[in-house]
Amino acid sequence: MANSKTGDSLVSRVATILDAFDTHRSSMTLSALSRRVGIPLASTHRLVGQLVDERLLERADNGELRLGRRLWELASRGSQTTDLRQVALPFLEDLHAVVQQHTTLGVLDGDDVLYVERLTAHGSAVNITQIAGRLPVDACSSGLVLLAHAPAEVQDEMLARTRVRYTHETVTDAAELRRLLAEIRTVGYACVPGIIVAEATGIAVPIFESGNRVIAALNVIVPRGDEDLHATVPALKTAARGISRALGADRPRGTVRRLPLPSLP
Amino acid sequence: MANSKTGDSLVSRVATILDAFDTHRSSMTLSALSRRVGIPLASTHRLVGQLVDERLLERADNGELRLGRRLWELASRGSQTTDLRQVALPFLEDLHAVVQQHTTLGVLDGDDVLYVERLTAHGSAVNITQIAGRLPVDACSSGLVLLAHAPAEVQDEMLARTRVRYTHETVTDAAELRRLLAEIRTVGYACVPGIIVAEATGIAVPIFESGNRVIAALNVIVPRGDEDLHATVPALKTAARGISRALGADRPRGTVRRLPLPSLP
Repeated sequence: MANSKTGDSLVSRVATILDAFDTHRSSMTLSALSRRVGIPLASTHRLVGQLVDERLLERADNGELRLGRRLWELASRGSQTTDLRQVALPFLEDLHAVVQQHTTLGVLDGDDVLYVERLTAHGSAVNITQIAGRLPVDACSSGLVLLAHAPAEVQDEMLARTRVRYTHETVTDAAELRRLLAEIRTVGYACVPGIIVAEATGIAVPIFESGNRVIAALNVIVPRGDEDLHATVPALKTAARGISRALGADRPRGTVRRLPLPSLP
Repeated sequence: MANSKTGDSLVSRVATILDAFDTHRSSMTLSALSRRVGIPLASTHRLVGQLVDERLLERADNGELRLGRRLWELASRGSQTTDLRQVALPFLEDLHAVVQQHTTLGVLDGDDVLYVERLTAHGSAVNITQIAGRLPVDACSSGLVLLAHAPAEVQDEMLARTRVRYTHETVTDAAELRRLLAEIRTVGYACVPGIIVAEATGIAVPIFESGNRVIAALNVIVPRGDEDLHATVPALKTAARGISRALGADRPRGTVRRLPLPSLP
């Protein structure tokens, strides 16, 4: 079973090593890697040797280790995420061209939104999302949309927790959050100004797949005070319907009703 | 070291298991996986258990195994490939909008072109490329561009081999291929009709990075007989210059000369 003395499996150590690389630290020396993952240098050296042999890691010109191209290939080839991204991309581009703002596609993964695509707009609002990056589900418009359409037990578990107050506008009260989720289901979108970054507003709508389950959220990030919901929401819903239909949703939802805008925070 | 009886490392077995999933077989049962990778069922079961624990594999609703979302996340987050793709995507979109044909971005990986992005045009030429898919380097326009700019030893090794004749137009003669590579360097692009699919023409140009090394090839795939090089090549070179500059190439190359078109096969 190749377990270490501390009992974690070798596969778990491999995952820990791969997890050490991210956008901010995309390459590092063997000893820096060993320190970062908390695995003794000799064990790290042995595992890294095997990972380099399999081209899951590679050595950069300066000798530092980085993720191997084969890892990207293996992970992308048969992946649901690649499929979703590929189906959604033309619609994201259309939306991005129309609204001229940051546009993201995110999925619910544990307690987070995992962003699978992001098209950026230069000189627009602050955008803290990254491709393959995460945000807490209760701290972004995409997360609230995904939570609003999640099974009751997922919602209950999330509502039972203590939440972090990122800004003055973050909704931390469970009753208020429950009311917000209901409102999002009713109006078909979430618009949340400044809940994680004070100067930006996220606007998001759900994307449905076959069986009309919500599989992802489509989002734009705009400078706060510049939401223009009467234009942005119809563009978002139109793009989301296109993606939903392409994903096999039986009856794409997302009408634009002339409702009073929800009294969001 | 957790080696199996046959001496392959556990990391190698993990890579073999992940490698079993691709676009055509994105999910399978445990026993199908065991047969496909040639690892005994008990060992496959044990490894799969660890991979599922780490969310590198996951179980679909029907119980079949598929690649886990965490694998995509780990592979994408700190990856050179994600960075290249993200820098190049806006330029690919522009090119795609202008030429209205399949557009791909590929890198040299061993003897193959590995496609890191593909934008498709409906109703256009046959397109056998896939994201994270591969084509032999001597059988596609992107491969010939990458080979034309590869170090001499890489070219020599490739030229010394026996090549597969995919169609009547595939260049298998080493002297002819060497002449073709020189021509591609001179004119700054490759245009190869039908070398792998008889009814399609690939047109490709190099993308440079810092140090003016060629890092990727930008390609369009058009129906054969519909090449319109006088329009397509300038659009390709313009987009490639944009990507090269964004990647830090000191002096992006790619002028459009009024040359006689190369006498390609």
